Amino acid sequence: MDPEMFLEVANQVTKLKMFPYFDIAHAVLCCLHVREDLGANTHPFSRRHPLTTWICCIFEIFAGGMLASLFLGEPVLSPLKSNQHLLLYTAVWYVIFYCPFDAGYKISKFLPVKLTFSVLKEIYRVKKVYDGVTHSLKIYPSGYLIALIIGTIKGNGAGFCKIFERLLRGVWTPGAIEILQPSFPTKACIAASLIFLLDKKTEFISAPHSLLYFGIVVFFVYFKISSILLGIHDPFAPFENIFCALCMGGLADAITRAFGGSPGSSPSSATQKPTPSSPTPSPDVSSEKKKD
Amino acid sequence: MDPEMFLEVANQVTKLKMFPYFDIAHAVLCCLHVREDLGANTHPFSRRHPLTTWICCIFEIFAGGMLASLFLGEPVLSPLKSNQHLLLYTAVWYVIFYCPFDAGYKISKFLPVKLTFSVLKEIYRVKKVYDGVTHSLKIYPSGYLIALIIGTIKGNGAGFCKIFERLLRGVWTPGAIEILQPSFPTKACIAASLIFLLDKKTEFISAPHSLLYFGIVVFFVYFKISSILLGIHDPFAPFENIFCALCMGGLADAITRAFGGSPGSSPSSATQKPTPSSPTPSPDVSSEKKKD
Amino acid sequence: MDPEMFLEVANQVTKLKMFPYFDIAHAVLCCLHVREDLGANTHPFSRRHPLTTWICCIFEIFAGGMLASLFLGEPVLSPLKSNQHLLLYTAVWYVIFYCPFDAGYKISKFLPVKLTFSVLKEIYRVKKVYDGVTHSLKIYPSGYLIALIIGTIKGNGAGFCKIFERLLRGVWTPGAIEILQPSFPTKACIAASLIFLLDKKTEFISAPHSLLYFGIVVFFVYFKISSILLGIHDPFAPFENIFCALCMGGLADAITRAFGGSPGSSPSSATQKPTPSSPTPSPDVSSEKKKD
Repeated sequence: MDPEMFLEVANQVTKLKMFPYFDIAHAVLCCLHVREDLGANTHPFSRRHPLTTWICCIFEIFAGGMLASLFLGEPVLSPLKSNQHLLLYTAVWYVIFYCPFDAGYKISKFLPVKLTFSVLKEIYRVKKVYDGVTHSLKIYPSGYLIALIIGTIKGNGAGFCKIFERLLRGVWTPGAIEILQPSFPTKACIAASLIFLLDKKTEFISAPHSLLYFGIVVFFVYFKISSILLGIHDPFAPFENIFCALCMGGLADAITRAFGGSPGSSPSSATQKPTPSSPTPSPDVSSEKKKD
Repeated sequence: MDPEMFLEVANQVTKLKMFPYFDIAHAVLCCLHVREDLGANTHPFSRRHPLTTWICCIFEIFAGGMLASLFLGEPVLSPLKSNQHLLLYTAVWYVIFYCPFDAGYKISKFLPVKLTFSVLKEIYRVKKVYDGVTHSLKIYPSGYLIALIIGTIKGNGAGFCKIFERLLRGVWTPGAIEILQPSFPTKACIAASLIFLLDKKTEFISAPHSLLYFGIVVFFVYFKISSILLGIHDPFAPFENIFCALCMGGLADAITRAFGGSPGSSPSSATQKPTPSSPTPSPDVSSEKKKD
Repeated sequence: MDPEMFLEVANQVTKLKMFPYFDIAHAVLCCLHVREDLGANTHPFSRRHPLTTWICCIFEIFAGGMLASLFLGEPVLSPLKSNQHLLLYTAVWYVIFYCPFDAGYKISKFLPVKLTFSVLKEIYRVKKVYDGVTHSLKIYPSGYLIALIIGTIKGNGAGFCKIFERLLRGVWTPGAIEILQPSFPTKACIAASLIFLLDKKTEFISAPHSLLYFGIVVFFVYFKISSILLGIHDPFAPFENIFCALCMGGLADAITRAFGGSPGSSPSSATQKPTPSSPTPSPDVSSEKKKD
């Protein structure tokens, strides 16, 4: 591929217009997500509680923006100010939940359609992460952690708000909180925010901005397609396991054990969970990534 | 009745001064609400946890203002800045919970007294809805949904904050969330916000503003009295049922069924709930209204 | 002691620089608190969820500032803007959770070390209460209740955010809410906020400001040491009991009983809890203080 043409493509990706196709893809996938969370209960629930269903969908669609607004001291409802977007999202919600023959749902679940929407949503997600980091750095030029948090929340707001979206339906699942079991999109958004932050604040990254942006888009799209087609869910897991084994206790426990101590701080914990900490974590351990 | 005199009355209702009588009525009913929510536990709880009781009452009284402030990015505690109001509300709280012979509670539960307070509170509620819509439109002139939300929250804040007010007492009832089962005041506030919005932003309503305002006050007061005296709880229900039967799945399900399909999306849901969707909803279905 | 030297000491306490020693003490005690809340589960949890552990610690450390920011309409994340503090706190978190031989934890639990940190933290706490009251009065010069709330939250933010910090780990304990069972630090912060408020807004307190400030520091430190060494947990309890017995229902119940009535509002409550209200509360009653 011609490098100049490649740069040209990258430039155009950076300047893509989001309305309306990317917004539709985002809204369809959010509504599908709400619907799948309702499970077998969808049909009676959506007929009895149309207002609640609508509020849940709208909340899920705007979750990232609303949470970021709250965290930055801006009006929480400000993302709702565009009537054009609201009408579009309401139409999507109606088509997904109330079509005769459930046509809207069935079409959007059809693999090629879902794949297209997913690809569009990932491109949109990168834009949101980038906008979040840029916006946050405008307010707090040296607030690196704030930029990371806002970028991540903008990119995967629905994940962080899932337990509150369920609460709107009267379901409370504190154990399903995103922070405890970060999903792949959350980790990818943390990584993307970090790269954008390094690009903006340091000289480590010498690549032109549009190439970097395009690279992250390709990474997001590639792993989304892998996840849908091949079932690969978390390419970060091996790195996390190595990092945890080295820095987050694994090495310290090995040193402790080498000198004859028990790594569990109290004997009772060792009794309750036999061998809770092998120095090299087993593959099923859903350990997490620690940033800087 | 002389139309000019009628308009005169309407004008005066629009300009009613709220402090202190309407505030007292609002505070008395909020404290009664907290007390009835405590149930048989009131006496030991209020003696052991006077601070918690007071915080719950103050939170319930200011719930609408505080939630609206949060949603509009204003200081959440700003409604608490008036010491005059706080002293008044503290006095009301004290009289309702700690009077010898429980006199305060018994008097305010006496039907004519309660009816008077309820009428005053409904007049106050309309003012709060109107102020909410006006204030929101000043910040977001074309944020119609934001104006609807703020108007509704200002009008029935206590309903939306009930589960958080209970949380302050250590009781967590996620299933009792207002959005899932909107009460009549919530629906009436949505309707009133919508009418005020139409009045301000469109030419559909040609009546003078004070007449419109007066009409909404009469509607609120009339249904409150009906609810207390006759037990009529939801005049919106028939309209909602028709609307749901036509637009929210009823018609779509009928079309699906006419062509031989099963309206339930999955067979398992049909098994769990037999006949979950008759095209004309049965009267006990607590279906909700959808506002666009 | 020479009064002039005493005033000199008081003046110096008022102007103490907090960074880094007081910040370290605060962070160590917050991390210990998180770790003790995890209990026997600490070792496996901290190895499997390092990111969650870090977020919980950082949230607990900044809880007061973040909650106060939310309540005053400032950006919730603004306390995170100092990278210097974040690095320091991250180092403290790492040492407490991931040291070989668990050295960091064991040293900080060693009584003289813990006592030193506790004393530093109490001095820091007074400063935070004072800053909270001052800051709040700048925004709302006559918002006395707001100043009290902000002072208390800044002083004991971790206590108020405990149930949310647990939620971040997927644990939900609504019954453990601080408002229902205020701990001694909460009560002391309410009292300190009230004294600072009286000092700033009235002429009741004629002592110079630095002496007053020093007096509160001595009070906080003295009761913290008593609590660690002697197990005295709540010096406010007797005053609360007298106040409750006089004002919060005790006297009213006595009057009611004297004239032959039953103080419990409904017979069912009297049946459920026999003699729920003796006019002089028994010592085990964890009654609370009411501030007006």
